[in-house]
Amino acid sequence: MRKTFKSALCIAALLCTSLAHSAEIELKLAHSWPKGFPIFGTSVDEYASLVEELSDGRIAIKVDSRNKHKAAFGIFDFVKSGQYDIGQSASYYYGGKDPDTLFFTTMPFGMTALEQYAWFHQGGGLELANEVYAKHGIEVMTGGNTTMQMGGWFSKEIGSVADLEGLKMRIPGFGGKVMAGVGAVPTNIPAGELFQALERGTIDALEWVGPSLDLRMGFHKVAPYYYTGWHEPSTELMYFFNKKTMDSLPTWARSVLLNAAKLTGFNMTVQSQHESSVNWGLITTEYPNIEVRDFPADVIEALRESNNALLKVEAARSEMASRIIKSQADYLDTTRAWTLIGDQAYLNNIGK
Amino acid sequence: MRKTFKSALCIAALLCTSLAHSAEIELKLAHSWPKGFPIFGTSVDEYASLVEELSDGRIAIKVDSRNKHKAAFGIFDFVKSGQYDIGQSASYYYGGKDPDTLFFTTMPFGMTALEQYAWFHQGGGLELANEVYAKHGIEVMTGGNTTMQMGGWFSKEIGSVADLEGLKMRIPGFGGKVMAGVGAVPTNIPAGELFQALERGTIDALEWVGPSLDLRMGFHKVAPYYYTGWHEPSTELMYFFNKKTMDSLPTWARSVLLNAAKLTGFNMTVQSQHESSVNWGLITTEYPNIEVRDFPADVIEALRESNNALLKVEAARSEMASRIIKSQADYLDTTRAWTLIGDQAYLNNIGK
Repeated sequence: MRKTFKSALCIAALLCTSLAHSAEIELKLAHSWPKGFPIFGTSVDEYASLVEELSDGRIAIKVDSRNKHKAAFGIFDFVKSGQYDIGQSASYYYGGKDPDTLFFTTMPFGMTALEQYAWFHQGGGLELANEVYAKHGIEVMTGGNTTMQMGGWFSKEIGSVADLEGLKMRIPGFGGKVMAGVGAVPTNIPAGELFQALERGTIDALEWVGPSLDLRMGFHKVAPYYYTGWHEPSTELMYFFNKKTMDSLPTWARSVLLNAAKLTGFNMTVQSQHESSVNWGLITTEYPNIEVRDFPADVIEALRESNNALLKVEAARSEMASRIIKSQADYLDTTRAWTLIGDQAYLNNIGK
Repeated sequence: MRKTFKSALCIAALLCTSLAHSAEIELKLAHSWPKGFPIFGTSVDEYASLVEELSDGRIAIKVDSRNKHKAAFGIFDFVKSGQYDIGQSASYYYGGKDPDTLFFTTMPFGMTALEQYAWFHQGGGLELANEVYAKHGIEVMTGGNTTMQMGGWFSKEIGSVADLEGLKMRIPGFGGKVMAGVGAVPTNIPAGELFQALERGTIDALEWVGPSLDLRMGFHKVAPYYYTGWHEPSTELMYFFNKKTMDSLPTWARSVLLNAAKLTGFNMTVQSQHESSVNWGLITTEYPNIEVRDFPADVIEALRESNNALLKVEAARSEMASRIIKSQADYLDTTRAWTLIGDQAYLNNIGK
């Protein structure tokens, strides 16, 4: 190692860094979650610390949770307008602002976390996302994955498609539309009322995330069937950056902001795998009667047809949507073939 | 956003950065691969660029490939001695230097990439690795995963354990020992001679990596059976840092070096998924007669017993080895239960 302190200028640089009380670049960030919300929210606090550390204190980020800004789904507008420089949220919350943002979180029957990361970072996915968001003066970066989301907690077993007819289920977004296509009745209920709704039979089923975040909600205490996933195989959060802010920054600062987001996202994905592992262990130890179920083949088939019909409508809506759907379908074909002879064959063949 | 250029000191800081011709901190890095070697080697070049960019040019890393330093497996000694500040290689190459380094790459019947990342970063795995390496004055960080390694290319089909008796196979390391335990004859042959050895029948089988790196070796042209994985489910490369160098650096510089390594590793893992996907597509298009095979249940059982017997010997060898093996086994139990109801259930239930 050679440390070269080249000149008085550089000594000054060090002094600047160590004596200064405020950073050179001060940014504001808003995220969608309550303050300190596990994994999703704490991950953003880690992002701010990482940026400060990597930049030697030259960049400071002030993080506002939704306790402060009061608008869980306002992140898109906050960053578009420049009210906040950075946001962290899920892209699919903003279909009302631009329907093409729908595709950049996860899709029913879509890619798993690692497959989708390959699409985003090697298969043109992030470029497509940035093409969509550039129209709104926003630049984006992947922000962390929940890993597989479970199909949800059900009061009764689902034996066939007929059992979905009239089933009241909390399942928002595109998954909800797919469910509606097979006769279920998607409802939306605030998070704080979900447990009671499920316990009292106001709803028959709900999906939340996976063991990582389901445990604390307690659904396993009132619904004995835990269905495996189909509608959100790899829910990826996203960092949003105001483009004018980004364009005004020097290269190193842009690089710190984007790369720290990507790394924080990876850390969150790894944490999700960990928390789901540990929490699933806790659930099965305390509630050994929980039954894990796969949806029967005819249900999966009906859901897939419903999904395909919706995707056809989406693809007809705009040239951009059509390109994104094709890109995802083509990439899924290619990468799934590898997953099947790689991880899936391993897991199936070596047994538990 | 608020940019505060607080004082003349900070103007000087900027001038220092932009006018300087050499970095404040200059480090040397050695890796195990030929110059420009796909994925493994190019990943290190990306690491050096990322560190330079994140640090605004304050840290410069000179990368030497094995074409320069001539010692593919000398990375451990290079970094231990301080001849190089940083190394990138695979931990399991250094079992001859310290047998406890064996466990930090991948293990037969072990964790998949995401499971193992959870162990490293949330389950105490990296702490154990650093405990082992601290004895040698080295600090380590995860450095990128190949994703699932395939079981290898075989000239003949393996119908039962009897077919492994006397089978000449290129399979190095712990996997080779496991194979020897069931009667096969592991051989080591330089990479450049492998194709010819397989073609001429000098060996009956070989394992290399997976489609990501197998395609360019051409093995599919001379061996029709491609067996699914068991011995290296998640081969993780590693960055090694000379501890004295690291201890002499300011916090921000340490953070840049470690976090850039972690991120570069994540990028490599994503690239591996991508390259294996694309290359498997190329192999099956050009050689549609390649047959993918799982080892039969009795072969898997025999390999697992051989593996367990070897692990027992390892665990008896040292208290450290025993702790690492137990940590991995416990974590695998916990995380695999989640993988089975998460990704595996999804892949099995939604069909292709």
